[in-house]
Amino acid sequence: MSQAQTTQPTYVKGLENVIANQTKLCFIDGKRSKLLYLGYDIADLAEHSNFEEVAFLLWNYRLPKKNEYDEFVKAIRSEYEIPDQLVTVMKLMPKDSDPMDVLRTSVSFLGLFDPERNDNSLEANKRKALRLTAKFPTIVAAWEQIRNGKEPVKPNKEFNIATNFLYMLKGEKPDELYAKIMDVALILHAEHEMNASTFSARVTISTLTDMYSAVTSAIGTLKGPLHGGANREVMKYLLEIGDLSKVDDFVKKAIEEKRKLEGFGHRVYKSMDPRALILKRYSKMLGEKLGDTKWYDMSARIEELWVKEFGEKGVWPNVDFYSASVYYYMGIPLDLYTPIFAISRITGWTAHILEQLADNRIYRPRAEYVGPMDQTYIPIDQR
Amino acid sequence: MSQAQTTQPTYVKGLENVIANQTKLCFIDGKRSKLLYLGYDIADLAEHSNFEEVAFLLWNYRLPKKNEYDEFVKAIRSEYEIPDQLVTVMKLMPKDSDPMDVLRTSVSFLGLFDPERNDNSLEANKRKALRLTAKFPTIVAAWEQIRNGKEPVKPNKEFNIATNFLYMLKGEKPDELYAKIMDVALILHAEHEMNASTFSARVTISTLTDMYSAVTSAIGTLKGPLHGGANREVMKYLLEIGDLSKVDDFVKKAIEEKRKLEGFGHRVYKSMDPRALILKRYSKMLGEKLGDTKWYDMSARIEELWVKEFGEKGVWPNVDFYSASVYYYMGIPLDLYTPIFAISRITGWTAHILEQLADNRIYRPRAEYVGPMDQTYIPIDQR
Repeated sequence: MSQAQTTQPTYVKGLENVIANQTKLCFIDGKRSKLLYLGYDIADLAEHSNFEEVAFLLWNYRLPKKNEYDEFVKAIRSEYEIPDQLVTVMKLMPKDSDPMDVLRTSVSFLGLFDPERNDNSLEANKRKALRLTAKFPTIVAAWEQIRNGKEPVKPNKEFNIATNFLYMLKGEKPDELYAKIMDVALILHAEHEMNASTFSARVTISTLTDMYSAVTSAIGTLKGPLHGGANREVMKYLLEIGDLSKVDDFVKKAIEEKRKLEGFGHRVYKSMDPRALILKRYSKMLGEKLGDTKWYDMSARIEELWVKEFGEKGVWPNVDFYSASVYYYMGIPLDLYTPIFAISRITGWTAHILEQLADNRIYRPRAEYVGPMDQTYIPIDQR
Repeated sequence: MSQAQTTQPTYVKGLENVIANQTKLCFIDGKRSKLLYLGYDIADLAEHSNFEEVAFLLWNYRLPKKNEYDEFVKAIRSEYEIPDQLVTVMKLMPKDSDPMDVLRTSVSFLGLFDPERNDNSLEANKRKALRLTAKFPTIVAAWEQIRNGKEPVKPNKEFNIATNFLYMLKGEKPDELYAKIMDVALILHAEHEMNASTFSARVTISTLTDMYSAVTSAIGTLKGPLHGGANREVMKYLLEIGDLSKVDDFVKKAIEEKRKLEGFGHRVYKSMDPRALILKRYSKMLGEKLGDTKWYDMSARIEELWVKEFGEKGVWPNVDFYSASVYYYMGIPLDLYTPIFAISRITGWTAHILEQLADNRIYRPRAEYVGPMDQTYIPIDQR
């Protein structure tokens, strides 16, 4: 077989540790709990920056100066609105549709209306990235209204992305702490190297198709429970357990059943996910503010027990573990947790699309053939 | 950097020759011009089989017995129709939309209506694969009618997929030779190992998302000019050349300008693409039937000159080169060439999705970090 001469001898399932490309966007040190965007520590960005600034950083490889930032924010806000045709399409969708399917379809449909849809230049693609980032929250919030039989709330240009999203979701200006925490959550989820959805976006754009195609791929990939769907699963078992007193039994049983607990473990991190560390603080803060630390306390106890059992094997809480209780405290429906991930990650996806196009080669790996050879075609009446 | 300890030392752009997974579906011997589906030579299948049977083969790893085949064909035909809501959505799309964008959006929308959309079992996914294969031609033909201001032609259950597609496209029963050639074209494009669109489908499904998400990824990936968009580009330069007498000058100039000619060369084939060989015969046959062999003659001359120059370097005609003139002879609009590719490849995509799910691991490669480290966050007014 000619394959033997041309392909690598070792096959690693899931492309584990295979380098798919180079990037300037994100550095992860999975042993030292470090995550950097363009060299900036995620902890610094969560404390001092904001989501819009992080988007600028990812698309331009540097932080903006004051006037650039002002212009950039203004440009984003001018793109908050979605076309009426999209609202019409959303109203045709079954009310029980998964919000990720709705987002995937809406973004694909939006691509038909982008004035620069056939322009794959860097500048046009940066503008498309900005439009997508501006419109994602509007789509997700519009679906929340439409599936509840209401008209979408119009976006408000006075608000930043995080505030505007909560405003459109609830129909009223959100509490400042909620808006701040949403902003931090958006910063923390913005970018994470070659995760499956980002990888799918790079594979798709590598044929020189358009940005909407690549982003549509990424949304569908993020949807899966092994990727963006995990935080919803975390909240499901927290609700199932229901009380701090029942945590120990639950964990004991899960260990006995060799269950893989969602929210723990990561292909790259073998220590605490630095994003989980930050969200843990906010989960606690929210519980205290609301006078009900139950979901935080349960989470912290599960963490303690799970890490005691599996920490040495490199299994620690990941970003999904504490985002679950954070979003739950904020009154966000469970099936919007993954769409919120998308509202943030659109910035990283599009940054990777820009980076892929800047030095492109089509992804065309090989498969190892393990099927039959030399089959003779037998006519149907002789089979 | 911890990466150095955990990742492979060599980075190959585009994952060239990297094995991404195992497969039983397709074997390519790029040096001997061999392409097998489940061990059956593509030349045998093109001569003796038909597209429906090939679909069965790809999803079941064997050819059907007579009664299975009859039942299978009946099941496909019962799924030809698309929901009215989808036609409504298509009528909201701008008339100049790229048919691949229309297909991508339509399939994503269809996913919301599939009765088994949340069932990722093998049997449910086989039924979804069948539905998608049945409905793809209806979507593409409906768009051709709608963009021309007409109502879609209802599918006809008396016809096989190839005949039905041409019938819906033109509004009348097609010539038998055309229907036969369309059937062969669908067989030849059905499956081709780890091409970029199939790979994107496998990456997407590997998060355990749903089949519609994975197929939507694949459509967007196929759209690109480096992948499914190539046959359209071939026809564009054939039309641009316009006459056999001008071919030699065109080729000479293209060589001088070091132009990469679409329809030539392949990451895997370093000899004649076996599919091109079969389509070449049909291009000639169509030219003779229509009394105008111009497009065939031009193609054959370009092939002769290009292979003389680059054949030793492994650059030969690929499947896109002769499908261009074949589709042109059949009166198919240029921008439907790639959607026809999709009408066929949906069978291979879904077969790979089934195969991935049968032994899944999430694709999560790494990137080599080439960006800055240890950046200090400077407040915006001090930048």
